[in-house]
Amino acid sequence: MATTLITGGTVVSSTGRSEADVLVDGEQIVAVLAPGSQLLGSDLTRSVDTVIDASGKYVIPGGIDAHTHMEMPFGGTNASDTFETGTRAAAWGGTTSIVDFVVQYPEQNVLDQYHLWHEKAAGNCAIDYGFHQILSDVQDSSLTAMDELVAEGVTSFKLFMAYKGVFLSDDGQILRAFQKGAENGAMMMMHAENGAIIDVLVQQAIAAGNTTPYYHGLTRPWQAEEEATHRAIMISDLTGAPLYVVHVSAKQAVEQIAAARDRGLNVFGETCPQYLYLSLEEQLGASSEEWGDFEGAKWVCSTPLRSRAEGHQHHMWQALRTNDIQMVSTDHCPFCMKGQKDMGLGDFSKIPNGIGSVENRMDLMYQGVVNGQITLERWVEITSTTPARMFGMYGTKGVIQPGADADIVVYDPNGHTSIGVGKAHHMNMDYSAWEGYEIDGHVDTVMSRGTVVVDGGEYLGTTGHGRYIKRGLTQYLQ
Amino acid sequence: MATTLITGGTVVSSTGRSEADVLVDGEQIVAVLAPGSQLLGSDLTRSVDTVIDASGKYVIPGGIDAHTHMEMPFGGTNASDTFETGTRAAAWGGTTSIVDFVVQYPEQNVLDQYHLWHEKAAGNCAIDYGFHQILSDVQDSSLTAMDELVAEGVTSFKLFMAYKGVFLSDDGQILRAFQKGAENGAMMMMHAENGAIIDVLVQQAIAAGNTTPYYHGLTRPWQAEEEATHRAIMISDLTGAPLYVVHVSAKQAVEQIAAARDRGLNVFGETCPQYLYLSLEEQLGASSEEWGDFEGAKWVCSTPLRSRAEGHQHHMWQALRTNDIQMVSTDHCPFCMKGQKDMGLGDFSKIPNGIGSVENRMDLMYQGVVNGQITLERWVEITSTTPARMFGMYGTKGVIQPGADADIVVYDPNGHTSIGVGKAHHMNMDYSAWEGYEIDGHVDTVMSRGTVVVDGGEYLGTTGHGRYIKRGLTQYLQ
Amino acid sequence: MATTLITGGTVVSSTGRSEADVLVDGEQIVAVLAPGSQLLGSDLTRSVDTVIDASGKYVIPGGIDAHTHMEMPFGGTNASDTFETGTRAAAWGGTTSIVDFVVQYPEQNVLDQYHLWHEKAAGNCAIDYGFHQILSDVQDSSLTAMDELVAEGVTSFKLFMAYKGVFLSDDGQILRAFQKGAENGAMMMMHAENGAIIDVLVQQAIAAGNTTPYYHGLTRPWQAEEEATHRAIMISDLTGAPLYVVHVSAKQAVEQIAAARDRGLNVFGETCPQYLYLSLEEQLGASSEEWGDFEGAKWVCSTPLRSRAEGHQHHMWQALRTNDIQMVSTDHCPFCMKGQKDMGLGDFSKIPNGIGSVENRMDLMYQGVVNGQITLERWVEITSTTPARMFGMYGTKGVIQPGADADIVVYDPNGHTSIGVGKAHHMNMDYSAWEGYEIDGHVDTVMSRGTVVVDGGEYLGTTGHGRYIKRGLTQYLQ
Amino acid sequence: MATTLITGGTVVSSTGRSEADVLVDGEQIVAVLAPGSQLLGSDLTRSVDTVIDASGKYVIPGGIDAHTHMEMPFGGTNASDTFETGTRAAAWGGTTSIVDFVVQYPEQNVLDQYHLWHEKAAGNCAIDYGFHQILSDVQDSSLTAMDELVAEGVTSFKLFMAYKGVFLSDDGQILRAFQKGAENGAMMMMHAENGAIIDVLVQQAIAAGNTTPYYHGLTRPWQAEEEATHRAIMISDLTGAPLYVVHVSAKQAVEQIAAARDRGLNVFGETCPQYLYLSLEEQLGASSEEWGDFEGAKWVCSTPLRSRAEGHQHHMWQALRTNDIQMVSTDHCPFCMKGQKDMGLGDFSKIPNGIGSVENRMDLMYQGVVNGQITLERWVEITSTTPARMFGMYGTKGVIQPGADADIVVYDPNGHTSIGVGKAHHMNMDYSAWEGYEIDGHVDTVMSRGTVVVDGGEYLGTTGHGRYIKRGLTQYLQ
Repeated sequence: MATTLITGGTVVSSTGRSEADVLVDGEQIVAVLAPGSQLLGSDLTRSVDTVIDASGKYVIPGGIDAHTHMEMPFGGTNASDTFETGTRAAAWGGTTSIVDFVVQYPEQNVLDQYHLWHEKAAGNCAIDYGFHQILSDVQDSSLTAMDELVAEGVTSFKLFMAYKGVFLSDDGQILRAFQKGAENGAMMMMHAENGAIIDVLVQQAIAAGNTTPYYHGLTRPWQAEEEATHRAIMISDLTGAPLYVVHVSAKQAVEQIAAARDRGLNVFGETCPQYLYLSLEEQLGASSEEWGDFEGAKWVCSTPLRSRAEGHQHHMWQALRTNDIQMVSTDHCPFCMKGQKDMGLGDFSKIPNGIGSVENRMDLMYQGVVNGQITLERWVEITSTTPARMFGMYGTKGVIQPGADADIVVYDPNGHTSIGVGKAHHMNMDYSAWEGYEIDGHVDTVMSRGTVVVDGGEYLGTTGHGRYIKRGLTQYLQ
Repeated sequence: MATTLITGGTVVSSTGRSEADVLVDGEQIVAVLAPGSQLLGSDLTRSVDTVIDASGKYVIPGGIDAHTHMEMPFGGTNASDTFETGTRAAAWGGTTSIVDFVVQYPEQNVLDQYHLWHEKAAGNCAIDYGFHQILSDVQDSSLTAMDELVAEGVTSFKLFMAYKGVFLSDDGQILRAFQKGAENGAMMMMHAENGAIIDVLVQQAIAAGNTTPYYHGLTRPWQAEEEATHRAIMISDLTGAPLYVVHVSAKQAVEQIAAARDRGLNVFGETCPQYLYLSLEEQLGASSEEWGDFEGAKWVCSTPLRSRAEGHQHHMWQALRTNDIQMVSTDHCPFCMKGQKDMGLGDFSKIPNGIGSVENRMDLMYQGVVNGQITLERWVEITSTTPARMFGMYGTKGVIQPGADADIVVYDPNGHTSIGVGKAHHMNMDYSAWEGYEIDGHVDTVMSRGTVVVDGGEYLGTTGHGRYIKRGLTQYLQ
Repeated sequence: MATTLITGGTVVSSTGRSEADVLVDGEQIVAVLAPGSQLLGSDLTRSVDTVIDASGKYVIPGGIDAHTHMEMPFGGTNASDTFETGTRAAAWGGTTSIVDFVVQYPEQNVLDQYHLWHEKAAGNCAIDYGFHQILSDVQDSSLTAMDELVAEGVTSFKLFMAYKGVFLSDDGQILRAFQKGAENGAMMMMHAENGAIIDVLVQQAIAAGNTTPYYHGLTRPWQAEEEATHRAIMISDLTGAPLYVVHVSAKQAVEQIAAARDRGLNVFGETCPQYLYLSLEEQLGASSEEWGDFEGAKWVCSTPLRSRAEGHQHHMWQALRTNDIQMVSTDHCPFCMKGQKDMGLGDFSKIPNGIGSVENRMDLMYQGVVNGQITLERWVEITSTTPARMFGMYGTKGVIQPGADADIVVYDPNGHTSIGVGKAHHMNMDYSAWEGYEIDGHVDTVMSRGTVVVDGGEYLGTTGHGRYIKRGLTQYLQ
Repeated sequence: MATTLITGGTVVSSTGRSEADVLVDGEQIVAVLAPGSQLLGSDLTRSVDTVIDASGKYVIPGGIDAHTHMEMPFGGTNASDTFETGTRAAAWGGTTSIVDFVVQYPEQNVLDQYHLWHEKAAGNCAIDYGFHQILSDVQDSSLTAMDELVAEGVTSFKLFMAYKGVFLSDDGQILRAFQKGAENGAMMMMHAENGAIIDVLVQQAIAAGNTTPYYHGLTRPWQAEEEATHRAIMISDLTGAPLYVVHVSAKQAVEQIAAARDRGLNVFGETCPQYLYLSLEEQLGASSEEWGDFEGAKWVCSTPLRSRAEGHQHHMWQALRTNDIQMVSTDHCPFCMKGQKDMGLGDFSKIPNGIGSVENRMDLMYQGVVNGQITLERWVEITSTTPARMFGMYGTKGVIQPGADADIVVYDPNGHTSIGVGKAHHMNMDYSAWEGYEIDGHVDTVMSRGTVVVDGGEYLGTTGHGRYIKRGLTQYLQ
């Protein structure tokens, strides 16, 4: 097996940083060493196959994006990134693991879908991948499947309080799934929006002729998110199952999560770059020659962008600092404007919901460090270490330590990255939700299980290198 | 320099655990390696001077007790442990660093006192030590001294809202000190009790003939602590200086800290083992043949023990889990019953305030792991990693990683420790506040900067081995 | 028309008490006078038909019970009090107005039901009565009916978050009804329990063989009430409609209401005597020779009795004092043990839900005055003045002032009332939920619209005296 | 004695409004009657001396201003209104009772001062007056005096957490006074600002050359008010004494009061018109030819005007609606610009603190009704009924009912009032803090204890008509 020594860099963990060298043997890290490449008198640079000079750069555990939807069938089309294109784009952006969602729709069998997703991913991924399982309209057979899936390494299950007829489970179904989670230790994930409320508001907006993308946000008010978040917390409290709220966007939802945590519940929240940087006001103002005010469709996602005047973005950065929000995923669910998003011309409710960011997450969050919003250590924590702990991969993933997979990123704080379709862009989208964003840093080298997959602006990976991650139970409970 | 390899153990950090070997060269850790003692084909056990077998045991960063009062002059006597006896006892208990308080009384010069404390400690300590500075009755010269002390590695300053004429500063003085802290980056520590209230209640209790130790607690009600905590937070908010509240004992004070943190303030809280395990009710019931109801004097400390019926202890464990309380120190301030505590026979207000636990902290908190109150990782975090980060020592202390001081404890989860004067007890006290406590674990080996100081039930250290820790600014801010 | 002078008493209002005489002419109060029965020199006692001596007694506005279910079809039977028996019992207890609920079940037309209820009540009532309208499974026609009903004096509408297939509306239906309420000014009332959760818990309890009445309470946990209360508040917030939560029993639900009120929402809560005095623990312990542990069925009501150990009752009295709960109704829904409650022998879910207290409310709440829980003025406020204001009757009802209906109670603080089936008991029930309760006061005289209907232990009223109260919009909004 | 009948008006109370006539005999109201001036067949208009036609107008209990400082010695000068000029101005504005503060400075004897204040007021007042007692630097003799004063009808005591050397008591002194209040039932009033903090900030501002009136506000930040409010609440909690916080201006202080009330404490808050209408930003922008930026001195009061951008004014109106703030007083403490306020030219800290509004309060608060901020009933409650109940005058004052003093205002909702020095202005001030305010209503007739003192734009009162109000204990406790 090949050996590599990464020398001269600053290894950053979730608790601190240190000058250290990292020795990789085959697929794993085998040692972290005091700088200088010496060990008990011998010069390690002579003993290894490859030396990577990381001087002046950060050496961090590879990014883990715990919320992606590759080639997901949704809204009459499929998310535009396949496992192949999506994981390759992820690698370009310094992400070395994803956890994607197996979709089960009401009429489908959970285990069938699980196997189907394995077929989709196997042999196609550039980096390692795990699965969460979506449970729609929870039935007895789904509850049984939960135990089998935990044994298979799918230790987290996502339920929906919205999307009637598509994903929705009622509170009784949710209760039963949470009871099962409390039994087998699974993490219960929740799309927390009150769908019944939203459906009425959407219908009323359309009936009133309010059909542009902006109304997507107006018909999914923060109250609908806050309410559902509170309700999910109550079910977590009743059953004892841990709860992970996905794509938190409203400050009032954060407050519910913070309050639950203060009284000792195992309740967690994830946010996404769009809720930290983008706003409803910008969506309202968006216009282009090509799309007119339908331009705003580029940012139609659920939960929606929130009003900056109401202070959601400011509060979300704060919550990231205070650990009231524990981590950042992308909810990567890309659709092209042409042929996909444009299905909603004249009716915002027909726009496929989703934004693609899997390639940009590490950079966008690093910019938060540059801007003074979070510390360097917190960057590593929210993008890698906590995702690993939250979803049962820590030790193998999420940390630079002996025994861990050699998923390593060399990040250059003196580099620069311009985001946009004509620039660095490898996602299968005809637009970028982040067009024009400039990042004061750069992903230089990306190693996945000991193999360099990106280096010096070149993609060196191979389709199928990525392996399935059989996850354990969450390692983040109090 | 001597080399040591610690093999076969489970290295525990604040985020996880892994099977790994630790290589020490001289005073520092130089490598953390995959288990098996192999590196690039060579067997390290042959290359090192000493091999420590940690199979089946935990390998953790040495404990850091950030709140001790060795040989402190207080209440007409001195704390009974000298730097020599106190640091030796600390080592016995798996603590490899302390941060002690330089005392400045109103009539004294801050820098003089700082130098005096160096004299007291130098050449006497078994383990490394740093200093916080107490500022009493803050004057202009004290504010100037703050800058000099930060340069000397004293980056934290303690103020008092109680003890009129002894330690007390008024809110204007506190404001000015906090303004200085906001300028130079120092951590502002607070003894948060409303002394003016307490003084009246004490005087009234004594006048009413309520003189036993139990009334110590009754005359320092939780309201006095909650109020002062809130007031300190307000001053932190006004000035922007970070705040660290010492020895938090009341759940309502925790709630104030939690609320401040939820709104993004850099406010932190420490608790002590006594507030997690002991209660006012037990102090009320305490009686012995020797001391009668004065037995309760053994647990006279400030803040006082709180009522179990009111739920403080339960809430404090919860707060440790939720990180509303960040760390556990001892407030080690030992006094003997004979000749010291007994000064308060007939008048509880004359009992020297303090409990000694420097030897017991690591064990007592480990028992929290056994009892299911905290995780193994959280044990390391609250006893070592966070203290190091909070007080600017991380990287050198508080972590097992290359470049760090080799302050390492091998802890045996299959061992057992009985606490009490006739058992393991090395503090200079004629009683133990923890008499009879049984711990399902044992400190087997303690290494301080590469030197084994405790092993196999023997003390191998030397007086004067301990060095002054020149601390940097806190590494724990959001 | 006959004239009456009530002399020598202490007139109590919601804000204070004063010595005053009250002059009634026909059905109304025409003057409130300084004591002494003199006006501009003439002795009024000579000019009136009747003089009632209220010396040493309280003269208060007649009680208003805003939550009754006379002869309500529910759970396969009918509430055992008809409008005739129920309103007569109410009069005996010092209540001179009720607001009863028109029931509309899913398959029924709202206006048909409204007319049917008029038929049931007309000519049968001893005292005046108004109607709230229950809306089940809200349809477009029900929304239209809301406007018509407001014009008819039915200005409050009750929705349910529980009882699937019977009363339940989903959140979208509730939203639409609240939108209508925001338009036409109606008060939106909510049975706030998460029925979907409860249905699963009930089914699981029965399946597990837990069939006794005690499990009624265990399967309706406070979380289900707190959650639904929070959700109803969110819908109120979204729409701007005022919200009145019925039969609040959980302290956590009170906290939600208090928080909503603190942020300025028009959110109100009612509690009932059972949630102030009775507990789940007593229900658990209830046993009799006749019924064994089915004895507990006497107190099966929804929301259920709550645990005293958890402090709900204590908190509810506090909330009554702080006006976080605004008023006390009975939720009078009586069933006999024989032939009704006993339908649930062997399956608690088949016990008709309800308790009868319409006769006891004024006495039970007065005992709160005696016990120091509330002031005399607050007694009048929560039993009469606020109910009148809350539901648009104030001025005519709920106050002793000129122009108001002469609904007056002379209450003797030196009298005594023993509650129970063999004692004062006029409700059509074969048991009393309050058997054995002793009250340090007594309803001496009850006047309904100028007619004495109860006096000196005799019933003097007539069936059909009571008239329909055409209510206006709420007079209680901020 | 003369008799008067007020006919045709709408009598407004704190709970509702009704068409009713009010009969006055001598100094008291003797009857409230159904409209039409008929009683048992006789026409009352023929029997009375005077008939006042209030058709189309509101008949309300005379205003009670519970916070005035007539001719108060403060800041090296005296408040510019004497009891004569100040109470006359009050009458003009529809206020028929004031409660003024007896001032005791540290070196003075409490009872001496009390007697001195009686001398100042006796024979000089246009309307009735009561006294609160200020206790500065609380001594044993002051505590003794508290009992004597309660017997004299001074049932409320004001303490200060600010103004060192002038008014300040430390927390121990405050505790002892509160303990006395808990014993004798007195209401404890608090000026809640952290003076120690403020003194440092003021000194620093002056030292930095920031001397204009605007810096008065900046050096008394909301944190200083919030903190002190919380501290006062803690002392109330500890002792059981009721607490009334004067001149609440910060929303965060309101939140502390609301939280205390939600947990059942007898804690109350007063605000003043300036905190509802005026802002720090306006003070910053204030400028005139005569005064330049010293114009802002007109609004130098303590607590200070708050920032509108921070939302204090908005929140304060909300708190008035939610009863988190219970009443509105003026803190009338007038100083002229020339010869008084101008003492602070070049040093804002030398500007006498105070604003004069005793004449304008009823109008300014009525405008809140017009603007939709409060209801008509709430206007009566916050300006008259609650002040009466809060300070033990209810029954005699604060209500239109038989037996009450005939303190009555006929208010015309179709009238208009322009405020300002050249318009209606009877306070002894050379400026008006409310210059230019326009009110959509007008005080038509003012009756004080049966005597018309203002009518049709004419002052008909007499100096010395006003009598001392011997108050009872608060009638507002829960």
